[in-house]
Amino acid sequence: MKYIPKAYFALTCATIFAIVSNTSFAFEALPAVPPIPKDNPMTPEKIELGKQLFFDPRLSKDGTVSCNSCHNVMAGGTDSRSVSVGVDAQKGGRSAPTVWNAAYLTVQFWDGRAATLEDQAKGPILNPIEMGMPDEASVVKRIKEIPGYVTQFEKVFGGKDSVTYDNIAKAIASFERMLITPNSAFDRYIKGDKGALSKEANRGMKLVESVGCTGCHTGPNFAGPASLSIGEGFFQKFPAFPGSKYDKKHALMADLGLYSVTNKKADKNMWRVPTWRNVALTAPYFHNGSVPTLGEAVRVMGKTQLNKELSDKEVTDIVAFLNSLTGEFPEITFPRLPDTLNISLVD
Amino acid sequence: MKYIPKAYFALTCATIFAIVSNTSFAFEALPAVPPIPKDNPMTPEKIELGKQLFFDPRLSKDGTVSCNSCHNVMAGGTDSRSVSVGVDAQKGGRSAPTVWNAAYLTVQFWDGRAATLEDQAKGPILNPIEMGMPDEASVVKRIKEIPGYVTQFEKVFGGKDSVTYDNIAKAIASFERMLITPNSAFDRYIKGDKGALSKEANRGMKLVESVGCTGCHTGPNFAGPASLSIGEGFFQKFPAFPGSKYDKKHALMADLGLYSVTNKKADKNMWRVPTWRNVALTAPYFHNGSVPTLGEAVRVMGKTQLNKELSDKEVTDIVAFLNSLTGEFPEITFPRLPDTLNISLVD
Repeated sequence: MKYIPKAYFALTCATIFAIVSNTSFAFEALPAVPPIPKDNPMTPEKIELGKQLFFDPRLSKDGTVSCNSCHNVMAGGTDSRSVSVGVDAQKGGRSAPTVWNAAYLTVQFWDGRAATLEDQAKGPILNPIEMGMPDEASVVKRIKEIPGYVTQFEKVFGGKDSVTYDNIAKAIASFERMLITPNSAFDRYIKGDKGALSKEANRGMKLVESVGCTGCHTGPNFAGPASLSIGEGFFQKFPAFPGSKYDKKHALMADLGLYSVTNKKADKNMWRVPTWRNVALTAPYFHNGSVPTLGEAVRVMGKTQLNKELSDKEVTDIVAFLNSLTGEFPEITFPRLPDTLNISLVD
Repeated sequence: MKYIPKAYFALTCATIFAIVSNTSFAFEALPAVPPIPKDNPMTPEKIELGKQLFFDPRLSKDGTVSCNSCHNVMAGGTDSRSVSVGVDAQKGGRSAPTVWNAAYLTVQFWDGRAATLEDQAKGPILNPIEMGMPDEASVVKRIKEIPGYVTQFEKVFGGKDSVTYDNIAKAIASFERMLITPNSAFDRYIKGDKGALSKEANRGMKLVESVGCTGCHTGPNFAGPASLSIGEGFFQKFPAFPGSKYDKKHALMADLGLYSVTNKKADKNMWRVPTWRNVALTAPYFHNGSVPTLGEAVRVMGKTQLNKELSDKEVTDIVAFLNSLTGEFPEITFPRLPDTLNISLVD
């Protein structure tokens, strides 16, 4: 049940340089509201239900793993690990992408195999090495055993049969659309507060443009052009310039990325361009979490994507700019997970 | 480094019946404020720091387990499992006790081996099958690598060397002292709202007294007399009447309880009397989590502790009363975990 992006933009090196040579590149602040699909309007009750589900480890086989276990909203939306740990201490194959501002992404997962947050939310629950539930019916059965969930689903989605796998995903996605971090130093700068950026960050901002990073890390989310619609992926080959020492050092080519979805030869080692928002908080870096520091990640990207050896000073300035993209995190109250009325559901 | 309670009350069956025959038993509401140790006064900054630490999985070896993983404050303060799962998917030997109202307990852990919340907090972080940090120095080093923690410790505890294992425990304990659930239906009833309890709960309240449960489940926390001071344990043999079918069915005698702390023969199968507060939310039941429903737990206790076969109606009424002990949970905002400034600390 793999989603293949309807239209996607697989940038070649030539394309990058064409973009880089376009001097009218404009930095953009994060829009106040992310796109909201017509078939899943947001309501306070749905967001609250989604919050409970997002934090509920009972959505996993043995009650140990919730969405938040790997996408920790108390931190940078990830788990500080190279790859995540699911049920039975199984390690995943890829690093958990941040859930913060995922609402602005036009495709989800590192390989873009889900068009929407709703589609994305359905994956990890059933993934045998993540949350490990055997099938959709088991998830629905588990939720139906918790009376406090049943009443909420009936209220939010209407009708008697409202506890469905689709609706579970819709509620989670609605909560995730609240996870946005506006008003970073960069955003304040763009909106006119010229003192919001340090000298280093200011130099870094000019560098990411002149060096060519913003050829791909573009748009308000630094993950692709603002013109893309939900479902339209924005991909790049990584490494675009294979052959550097980093290929082996960080095992960059071991995972074939988009190819595993499309089976097209041209898609080997193609990846969705990840956001720069809050990137300072999401170490370690890359799809395999192989690079422990942001400075090293910048250096690797310079070499593998632009065939440039960045100087220490350039790296420092670019990191300072990336730090300016850490936004303001909303205050969120803990959900109360509905109880199971004197019975245990797991074990 | 085992704590042996200075004074503890190991109830014999004779003692229980002496207490039961005392007709002046008085139900008590939960006090508004739990005991606060003189050497760890509570301040808003310390509570906030403790909250961050309580939810921070970086206190575990591989960044996957926080205090909240097993003592989930979004739920009943436990993890819905018979025994908890720590790092590397290792299973613990005992069921996670609730953290809610633990501030009112006079000793901590099922076997009472810690006198205070501060002492308790130091255990799981270093336990190889729980959070798995190798030693105190490694925990302190990990915390010192997170600048946002260092500045908070300096502010809260004063001085340059304020990041210590003792202070980590003090901060966590201060947060835990906020985790209290006043104003249950039972508390409202005790304070004069005679309509707060259902008929069943009302009958159950009379039953727990007449049957003898409140011989041990006494005091406002239903975990021992209000007269006990912190460090004074209140223990009971379980099963007090060995030989029933439940001994084998639920492996009740496999774990020797207090004996593993004191090595005294008389302490075999002695356990701290657990609280009834929010017991409806902490299934499965007992030190080994062997009983999945509260009704069955009541039935087992009647037989093993009082040598009585409770009828179905008696069980239902007692469960209704226990449900009335579910309190009001305070609204808590998520902590923001201080970031690691572009580097990864685990893996």
